[in-house]
Amino acid sequence: MDITRAKLRQAAELMQKHGVDCWIIEFARETGNHSDPLAYLVGAQITWPSAFLLNHDGRSVAIVGSGDKGQIEGLGLWDEVRGYVASPRDELVNVLRSWDPGRIGVTWSDSDSMSDGITYGMYKMLESLLDRTPYKERLVSAGELAGEVRSRKLPDEIEAIHTAISFTEQVFQRIATQLKPGLTEIQLQKSVQSWIREAGHGFAWEDRMNPIIDFGPKSEPLGHSIPGETKLEPGHLAHVDLGITVDGFSSDLQRTWYLLRDGETDAPDEVKKAFTATRQAIDAGMAVLKPGKAGHEVDAESRRTIIEAGFPEPQFAFGHHVGRVAHDGAGTLGPRWERYGKTPEIPIQADNVFAVEMDLDVPGYGVIGLEEEAVVEGHGARFLSNPQRELWLLKPR
Amino acid sequence: MDITRAKLRQAAELMQKHGVDCWIIEFARETGNHSDPLAYLVGAQITWPSAFLLNHDGRSVAIVGSGDKGQIEGLGLWDEVRGYVASPRDELVNVLRSWDPGRIGVTWSDSDSMSDGITYGMYKMLESLLDRTPYKERLVSAGELAGEVRSRKLPDEIEAIHTAISFTEQVFQRIATQLKPGLTEIQLQKSVQSWIREAGHGFAWEDRMNPIIDFGPKSEPLGHSIPGETKLEPGHLAHVDLGITVDGFSSDLQRTWYLLRDGETDAPDEVKKAFTATRQAIDAGMAVLKPGKAGHEVDAESRRTIIEAGFPEPQFAFGHHVGRVAHDGAGTLGPRWERYGKTPEIPIQADNVFAVEMDLDVPGYGVIGLEEEAVVEGHGARFLSNPQRELWLLKPR
Repeated sequence: MDITRAKLRQAAELMQKHGVDCWIIEFARETGNHSDPLAYLVGAQITWPSAFLLNHDGRSVAIVGSGDKGQIEGLGLWDEVRGYVASPRDELVNVLRSWDPGRIGVTWSDSDSMSDGITYGMYKMLESLLDRTPYKERLVSAGELAGEVRSRKLPDEIEAIHTAISFTEQVFQRIATQLKPGLTEIQLQKSVQSWIREAGHGFAWEDRMNPIIDFGPKSEPLGHSIPGETKLEPGHLAHVDLGITVDGFSSDLQRTWYLLRDGETDAPDEVKKAFTATRQAIDAGMAVLKPGKAGHEVDAESRRTIIEAGFPEPQFAFGHHVGRVAHDGAGTLGPRWERYGKTPEIPIQADNVFAVEMDLDVPGYGVIGLEEEAVVEGHGARFLSNPQRELWLLKPR
Repeated sequence: MDITRAKLRQAAELMQKHGVDCWIIEFARETGNHSDPLAYLVGAQITWPSAFLLNHDGRSVAIVGSGDKGQIEGLGLWDEVRGYVASPRDELVNVLRSWDPGRIGVTWSDSDSMSDGITYGMYKMLESLLDRTPYKERLVSAGELAGEVRSRKLPDEIEAIHTAISFTEQVFQRIATQLKPGLTEIQLQKSVQSWIREAGHGFAWEDRMNPIIDFGPKSEPLGHSIPGETKLEPGHLAHVDLGITVDGFSSDLQRTWYLLRDGETDAPDEVKKAFTATRQAIDAGMAVLKPGKAGHEVDAESRRTIIEAGFPEPQFAFGHHVGRVAHDGAGTLGPRWERYGKTPEIPIQADNVFAVEMDLDVPGYGVIGLEEEAVVEGHGARFLSNPQRELWLLKPR
């Protein structure tokens, strides 16, 4: 709970900048069934409609169903916990009356999924609870505030992400010992998942696709794919995309090997050319990943490198925040496509932690994918992972 | 996927009744991080903004980011899967143009959390994608439709819930063998959780509070509480609230034991009186749990029994749907309190599956809680669990 307490302090300090006097961080119900990306600032799941409010001066109040009061008090995070039986209306209006905020932030964003907490139905309920009060007209979006709080990592958060990365790098070393002809994608996925579970850690995304494993040439275009019965063979690229959650913080890394054919001492030229282009795309993006740049500017550098090297234009963004989860919301290092909303416009800040990635399909051989984590510092970005600089070659036996 | 396919057929059949010509079942992004209670009709999690549409004639289309296309096609659930790179706008408008629905249902509800799928930000995005088309003005709430689809269980769903109940009842039998003086609440919770994990099953709610365990008198009022260091002692009630998810369907059951003191052959009179009142409250509610009744009418019968027996008025609803999760949304068997929204008004239907429950605090002894599952049939309700009819007595050694 120490990190959560520090994040609430950070949030209070950022409210003035975003013109939010009171932030309704979460207004939700049954968050065990319908998760809220803001729950990390609340500290627990709740059952009945609940409001978690933070004032610009740092005071905080939780308004929860009486059955949840004990567990929320037990967190020790909220200055005041008010329980209710029939309706949260009176407590909510009373808190707002006493703070009298000019602008009341509600956590929603059309661009940033991790800052889009409130459901449409709960927004309607909130408006109805504030009917015939002056507060209904004072509701504004707190989406950008939520995104900045999430994406400006505290030193303890960066350390926690680094711990997840280090464990993931150990898993990649263990994967290398398993990569032999005849191994199937599914067999490798099962082994990797058992190692993670035995260590008591979690998956940074759905385990059906974690890790993503690609052995050899793909019949389908690049995408989020489920490992299949394909066997690793000499002359195959072996590509693994893996994200592990350790103590609530996540990694997201990709590594690539080439299984030499009999008599080969190096990968074929077209494989080497693609690996070099992939690495150069990572480096081109990293070179401009610094405070004040917009995400689309970083993406453009990386994208241009790939096109200039003669490969098809990537259909994905170059990077995304990493934190509690692998896709941690806020700004995207991506093109200004509608599917990314306004997130490619968000200026990069110090203490952002990004995954930067590039994938290329090498016809006849398979997929090359590299993905690293990097933290933004004053004048540039520093890798948090140990970046893969060379294609890793495996002997056929 | 067979149940999901049957549920989509059931949904198409119910659309006309609810005046929905095309149902946008899910319009979401990053559902791995921000879960959608409608995902059970989609069959998978998605990353980029995606629309899953069902027409009243049963035709279905999924519009997903190109990286998700392969995995959604692989489900075999959606007649057509359209991938996009930059924006879902064109595909979405094209599908609506070809179906030309008069009323387009969007899944939100201010009352029913499990039918409140779309976030506020995604609703805004949907409106923006439909700008300058006739479809923006045709959006209506599909919340009641979603609730009916979820709560009218198919035979396979009832069977799957019964399987979860049977496993849970086995766990209760095993719990009884552990209840000895000196056992702490936390020790018992850890044991129960290890049995569930070893069996490969899941938790019907957050595992921090699953099972809820109450040994002896409580200093706090009834509520969602976390097991502590309290030791079981002779003269204590032992109360366990446990929900287990087996193959995607859940149970939610409560059982109560009394640990006899030296020389006792039965529980004290005040304990017996409270147990009888609890059982009678269950029976009173069950007697009126039938198609056509409103939830609040069922709750009122049970509530009246408790008050007439001289106990304080319960602060909780008498019952809730059980299915994919323990609190499965739709109607509540509860009082018309604002926190339950309109859900106590929803008429009960055949093939609804409810948890019915009553808890009483017995000062000096602890908590009595009974909770059963029941399926509604043509003329009444039938227990799916083997109901606890007597207080279970334990010898002190």
